[in-house]
Amino acid sequence: MIERRSFAALLFALPAAALAQGADPLPSWRDGPRKRALLEFVAAVTREGSADYVRPSARIAVFDNDGTLWVEQPAYVQLLFILDRIRALAPANPAWQQDAVFRAAIAGDLHGAMAGGNEGLMRLAGAAMAGNAPEEFQAIAAEWLKTARHPKWNRPYTALVYQPMLEVLRFLRAAGFGTFIVSGGGVEFVRAFSEETYGIPPHQVVGSSFALTVDEEAGRLMLRREPRVDFIDDGPGKPIGIARHIGSRPIAAFGNSDGDYEMLRYTTEGAGRRLGMIIRHDDAEREFAYDRESHIGRLARALDHAPTRGWQAVSMRDDWARVFG
Amino acid sequence: MIERRSFAALLFALPAAALAQGADPLPSWRDGPRKRALLEFVAAVTREGSADYVRPSARIAVFDNDGTLWVEQPAYVQLLFILDRIRALAPANPAWQQDAVFRAAIAGDLHGAMAGGNEGLMRLAGAAMAGNAPEEFQAIAAEWLKTARHPKWNRPYTALVYQPMLEVLRFLRAAGFGTFIVSGGGVEFVRAFSEETYGIPPHQVVGSSFALTVDEEAGRLMLRREPRVDFIDDGPGKPIGIARHIGSRPIAAFGNSDGDYEMLRYTTEGAGRRLGMIIRHDDAEREFAYDRESHIGRLARALDHAPTRGWQAVSMRDDWARVFG
Repeated sequence: MIERRSFAALLFALPAAALAQGADPLPSWRDGPRKRALLEFVAAVTREGSADYVRPSARIAVFDNDGTLWVEQPAYVQLLFILDRIRALAPANPAWQQDAVFRAAIAGDLHGAMAGGNEGLMRLAGAAMAGNAPEEFQAIAAEWLKTARHPKWNRPYTALVYQPMLEVLRFLRAAGFGTFIVSGGGVEFVRAFSEETYGIPPHQVVGSSFALTVDEEAGRLMLRREPRVDFIDDGPGKPIGIARHIGSRPIAAFGNSDGDYEMLRYTTEGAGRRLGMIIRHDDAEREFAYDRESHIGRLARALDHAPTRGWQAVSMRDDWARVFG
Repeated sequence: MIERRSFAALLFALPAAALAQGADPLPSWRDGPRKRALLEFVAAVTREGSADYVRPSARIAVFDNDGTLWVEQPAYVQLLFILDRIRALAPANPAWQQDAVFRAAIAGDLHGAMAGGNEGLMRLAGAAMAGNAPEEFQAIAAEWLKTARHPKWNRPYTALVYQPMLEVLRFLRAAGFGTFIVSGGGVEFVRAFSEETYGIPPHQVVGSSFALTVDEEAGRLMLRREPRVDFIDDGPGKPIGIARHIGSRPIAAFGNSDGDYEMLRYTTEGAGRRLGMIIRHDDAEREFAYDRESHIGRLARALDHAPTRGWQAVSMRDDWARVFG
């Protein structure tokens, strides 16, 4: 438990705009070491004259998306989108019935669709998502997100974002931070909902991408997403995506799997005060319990390194008073 | 000349924050069709309820850098940096003396250094700029910009930015726009000065880039810029860089050469009110006069298409009351 006095001291050290009348900026977080780490970090880097002070333009915070900001079980939402889209496009593509991976996808058989491994998934992804312009694809994805429902809660996926993390996003922005998503998911898929759902504009989303080409069509330039992966923003790709796209080293990083390990290291190995945070899925009742065993969002190495690297491992079960809004 | 009454009407239509007590937001622009086009465009897209209204998050303006925001003659500033850097590194690389292109660079012979064509320039660029981390390279470039001087004016390059364009950047930002640089130059080179010089943070700079790799060095992750071009953000590369990085189609674009042609088209071919603007270098007295004939910043096709596409061709000589601050 955080002490009353130090808690109040922290509140007063925070920028006025961040806190209306001393209200708790993180009401869905239970008091404890993780909440305290968040509050102390923000107080330290925003306190002018302190050794930890960071000027606003260098206050960059990066967030993984799947499993860090929203649900990633029983499968990445984008994969569920791909299966639905393959099913929708199937009548116009009868040849797909000759292919076991596509047949499984059309039947809505998640395991069968994944049986082709990475190569099979890439073929499904290309067939489901490429060939169109980025704007066109974003519109398709946004439309799907309006109607699709999660099998466990029967709610739209954009309702299954973590309320405590929405509070972190708002809290950091009120303290002058730029908040960025750095996702292994497709950049245009995440951009289809990031602004409305997280308040993060398209240009602050870094993600994996297909190659783009420029053509002329009916007297207008036409950008086309080719069924060929151009960049994988996962694992060691995350620091590369950050350097390329954001152009400065973040001071805070939030992830939930080993795919975020390099991003957490790149962030917290920088000079000065840093924050690394890992969301642990250990709440079978309110969400899902998985970590080391999962084929999706596997968390092992990053968790093993957390104590020596000073990363905060957040327990969904213990640290979050509420999971969804 | 803009009429008194319509000018006043425009001023009142602009957001209050943009204009202190009706002061002219573009004092270095002479009254005339180009200034009027700028004012009218911003008034139209910010006027709530108007057919041309654009919500703030979609107010994206893109700017070429060399020749649009700062001087690009007698050579791109980055090329002058490369030559200086080759000269500085030469004592540690005696083998360079065996290579005619490097010998010319070391001697400060611009024409000799360019005689090797693109291939020769890429070798110089790789030797001068690769092998380090992005942060390290930005520090080297920033240091050079502090001491280097332009041969014509003997002033730092960052003092040779166009005052009228600084006013456009500020004016657009005050009207809720996001301002982005989309440059053929190296992304880290531009990031080394964009925030201080233009008020544009690193993550709002799109540019050409070397490939990045991730290594481990002394127990820390190390990003390294390899001497291998990864992306050329010029010509048709500009719409690709915009789609990848910004993720939405701009509504205003500013350029000065045929390298900006596709960016101008991509911007102005979108639905709704758009602004395309081309800076013409026709002022031999205050800056340089070049256009169609130049080997740097050649402007021909974009200028030929301007009338039919509704792009505004700005004359430095006639439309700008002042060139530098």
